Amino acid sequence: MKHVPFKGIIAYPTTPFDQQGQVDIPLFRQLVERLVSSGTHAIAPLGSTGVLPYLMDEEKEAVTTAAIEQVAGRIPTLVGVSCLTTERTIYHARYAEKAGANAVMIIPMSYWKLTDEEIFRHYEAVASRISIPIMAYNNPATGGVDMSPALLKRLLQIPNVTMIKESTGDIQRMQYLRRELGEEVAFYNGSNPLALAAFAAGASGWCTAAPNLIPALNLALYDAVTRNDLQAANLLFYQQVDLLKFIVATGLPRAIKAGLELMGANGGYLRSPLQPLSQEETATLQQILQPLN
Amino acid sequence: MKHVPFKGIIAYPTTPFDQQGQVDIPLFRQLVERLVSSGTHAIAPLGSTGVLPYLMDEEKEAVTTAAIEQVAGRIPTLVGVSCLTTERTIYHARYAEKAGANAVMIIPMSYWKLTDEEIFRHYEAVASRISIPIMAYNNPATGGVDMSPALLKRLLQIPNVTMIKESTGDIQRMQYLRRELGEEVAFYNGSNPLALAAFAAGASGWCTAAPNLIPALNLALYDAVTRNDLQAANLLFYQQVDLLKFIVATGLPRAIKAGLELMGANGGYLRSPLQPLSQEETATLQQILQPLN
Amino acid sequence: MKHVPFKGIIAYPTTPFDQQGQVDIPLFRQLVERLVSSGTHAIAPLGSTGVLPYLMDEEKEAVTTAAIEQVAGRIPTLVGVSCLTTERTIYHARYAEKAGANAVMIIPMSYWKLTDEEIFRHYEAVASRISIPIMAYNNPATGGVDMSPALLKRLLQIPNVTMIKESTGDIQRMQYLRRELGEEVAFYNGSNPLALAAFAAGASGWCTAAPNLIPALNLALYDAVTRNDLQAANLLFYQQVDLLKFIVATGLPRAIKAGLELMGANGGYLRSPLQPLSQEETATLQQILQPLN
Amino acid sequence: MKHVPFKGIIAYPTTPFDQQGQVDIPLFRQLVERLVSSGTHAIAPLGSTGVLPYLMDEEKEAVTTAAIEQVAGRIPTLVGVSCLTTERTIYHARYAEKAGANAVMIIPMSYWKLTDEEIFRHYEAVASRISIPIMAYNNPATGGVDMSPALLKRLLQIPNVTMIKESTGDIQRMQYLRRELGEEVAFYNGSNPLALAAFAAGASGWCTAAPNLIPALNLALYDAVTRNDLQAANLLFYQQVDLLKFIVATGLPRAIKAGLELMGANGGYLRSPLQPLSQEETATLQQILQPLN
Repeated sequence: MKHVPFKGIIAYPTTPFDQQGQVDIPLFRQLVERLVSSGTHAIAPLGSTGVLPYLMDEEKEAVTTAAIEQVAGRIPTLVGVSCLTTERTIYHARYAEKAGANAVMIIPMSYWKLTDEEIFRHYEAVASRISIPIMAYNNPATGGVDMSPALLKRLLQIPNVTMIKESTGDIQRMQYLRRELGEEVAFYNGSNPLALAAFAAGASGWCTAAPNLIPALNLALYDAVTRNDLQAANLLFYQQVDLLKFIVATGLPRAIKAGLELMGANGGYLRSPLQPLSQEETATLQQILQPLN
Repeated sequence: MKHVPFKGIIAYPTTPFDQQGQVDIPLFRQLVERLVSSGTHAIAPLGSTGVLPYLMDEEKEAVTTAAIEQVAGRIPTLVGVSCLTTERTIYHARYAEKAGANAVMIIPMSYWKLTDEEIFRHYEAVASRISIPIMAYNNPATGGVDMSPALLKRLLQIPNVTMIKESTGDIQRMQYLRRELGEEVAFYNGSNPLALAAFAAGASGWCTAAPNLIPALNLALYDAVTRNDLQAANLLFYQQVDLLKFIVATGLPRAIKAGLELMGANGGYLRSPLQPLSQEETATLQQILQPLN
Repeated sequence: MKHVPFKGIIAYPTTPFDQQGQVDIPLFRQLVERLVSSGTHAIAPLGSTGVLPYLMDEEKEAVTTAAIEQVAGRIPTLVGVSCLTTERTIYHARYAEKAGANAVMIIPMSYWKLTDEEIFRHYEAVASRISIPIMAYNNPATGGVDMSPALLKRLLQIPNVTMIKESTGDIQRMQYLRRELGEEVAFYNGSNPLALAAFAAGASGWCTAAPNLIPALNLALYDAVTRNDLQAANLLFYQQVDLLKFIVATGLPRAIKAGLELMGANGGYLRSPLQPLSQEETATLQQILQPLN
Repeated sequence: MKHVPFKGIIAYPTTPFDQQGQVDIPLFRQLVERLVSSGTHAIAPLGSTGVLPYLMDEEKEAVTTAAIEQVAGRIPTLVGVSCLTTERTIYHARYAEKAGANAVMIIPMSYWKLTDEEIFRHYEAVASRISIPIMAYNNPATGGVDMSPALLKRLLQIPNVTMIKESTGDIQRMQYLRRELGEEVAFYNGSNPLALAAFAAGASGWCTAAPNLIPALNLALYDAVTRNDLQAANLLFYQQVDLLKFIVATGLPRAIKAGLELMGANGGYLRSPLQPLSQEETATLQQILQPLN
């Protein structure tokens, strides 16, 4: 149990910037506080939503520290530490552990397509240098490499790799993981439009940026599933699916920033090359978001 | 309601051949009877499982007549009438209606990729010549053309196109259909490994060859969903998922024939170029099938 | 040499229909005559351009006979005989041989994805019943099955399978074939936009419907290649590439019919579900075609 | 002309590391010298072959300076400066210009899929801060984003974006570029197995790591093309195609290191997660490489 500290709604904050292009730590703390007080079950800074790959080393450290201080142990924290090289991944994983993270999330970011052996050794090297659990994260659309179910199964042989997050958007992948790995291995859904299908398939949790905008609907979906009420889950899912599709289609950091502003909150600035949503996109988001809050 | 005659488990029989390569009508009637007496909710001859495209015109007619006579109104019958040309599709749709079919299923078989306009006119031309409802069937893996959700929505403007069967294996397609078309339009799942996810998404029924081998498990899954018991549905689904994946991966006519024989039933012969499962494939099927019966 | 009767520009006529939807044999003979007198090196009736899959058995026979009579031995004839079942493929291959075809072309049309073993046996069964050479034709976009280079290599073990036509549009496939099979095996390009790249890679010929509209340019490209004049070939290719892309994008039978009519010839009628080009498409074709004639 | 400083064989050196994982600048200079003295027409440090994304800022600067000093103006130098953020890309582009680079190469590296507008602004922002020409580089397999031909055409509106490198492996893309952009825009082939097809289509140059192992064959292919001798080009291409495919399939940095060692040269160490070729891969490379040197 201590090795699988997460279930339910795992919320991903964005990393906001100020007008000069520097990370806005005070605003980041506000965004984290919003998520914690909304009732989500865990906080995951420095994910894709948190534009991890766009940050310098010292920025990553500042965000990690700020997140853990702000959460202050009220709910568990999962810190993204993925880097292109093994050496930098180890560095940030160790930093997160010392700062008090409950677990780290690692996606095998690639430029060159990595072999299965290279990916295995990468995880093994990081795992040997930390004591907290690792969530292995598969998302070819952002990381550039697609880990097969067989490789994910192999990664679980590494003692502190105890969780898998699947974001391919292929429900059969999750079914395979549940079938092959058994019920004791926790798998998490990272594909927003698959939220209902993944819970039906047995996912332990849903890794999502949506709670920045609609935490009550996200939590209600999970509650319906835990109450074994499929009909309620189905209705709740179709209420939120348009938003889930929109934030994926336009990119999570851009969409969450725009949504926060539509709701009267401060979303901060984006770091270039990312640009704000267009006027048309913002208008569409408003149409989707308004009836939900 | 009269326009949507199907729900639940819609069972697809194979079309067996004799040793001389002719359709074996007496054996076909036995296979249909097995399905009806197993409790499935509808029978669908001349689907992909029934190797429709491999049959001559008079063979299709004989199979249609035999199926409807054998079912004898105990449950509804859905007859596949897809042909490459519009003229032949009309011919077989009219034959099926006269023979007493409750509905026809039409996939826009293509050699040349058809335009949306060509597909729309094809359905419209057939629909104008019959009075029974049409199930529009999307399956790019067999038919060769992928109808977009927007085109499927347009097809529903044709009065007797009242049902959609989706077999792309993409759960987001089904979610889109439910979201766009509303609850009054019936959509059916034709992708076996998506059985649980599709019911969770609101599918009215499951079009499947699996009841030839494991009807009790297929029916129990549907019952769990109608009882709103997600946990039971999850357990029942994982009991049968290996078989569902196997029959899709090896091809339904080949896999059902082999499974029938493993269970002591007569599966008949295949028509060339289709060949029986290899010994290794048959052994794998036995391992999967044995604990389920 | 007797087993590889083709090189250069192998021209594919359409199969025109009359207003009542019947094959228009007199017009078909005119279209064949156009191609022969334009100087193309071979004629290939009943290809994809000739809408083979949309024809009834007796229609295929009439077209075969008419083509061979019209060509009258002036250039070689390659007859398409592909059918979904092995039995029907044998039937039409034997018919073509008796009618005087120099070779037959066979694509493994599929509804169910065929295994490599099933495809091999299919070709073997047909080959054992005829004495003329077979061109094995790979085109997943129309036939629905993609034969790997390894399978194509295996097919060449069958004595009268002596030619390969590759239409995937992947130049690396052709390079692989040349490299693996050596210079003695003839491979043909069936992807119009790859005409230049395929000749550079060593293709023996180009299977194309383009000579219905621009035979002089097609022949000049081949002549430049045989003269070892790459610069001339490059210039000639870029003169015709827009037309080659257009006829592929809109579908060969539809595009050739429209082009014939723009040039003042009779293109006949199409068989439903195929529909004529839209007005916009026709206007685009005119813009492309006008400067080329 | 001053804006398109490259043609022919543009050679990509690897970035070697020492046993402690630091960039081995003396060895890097040796590898650059090998390439210059082999007769290649340009040198391109910090490409994919040079594992640009795995390097820290100061390492990139050291490699840039070393390359330009070593080449010493004998042939032009093209420096890779791609970074995930616009700010870092500008920084390294300015560094390269000051160091004396003739041009910079920029691929829009992405984590989040960038919109066309974001990519355009990214290039525009970098271009406005330097005076040397930019080669826009499209390679979805490594960069994660696929720039459409229309976007590439738009990028060429930015004054110092004057060259395009296409690495999708789709010959039709190159043909489109030539057709749309005209002969005055230089496009370069970055897909090794397409070397012959790209030159036939009119590519100005070939960006390749192969000259680290077989410079004479690479140069001879280009010479045959410039002599308008297609038959010789065809023969030369087929002599080297197996090597070209191998180095792409196993990854350029790994394959070049192994090949250098098989030829008795020092390939240095790789930076983790990259691992050396396996024994089997090395044996295969030896079989391919031996007859070529």
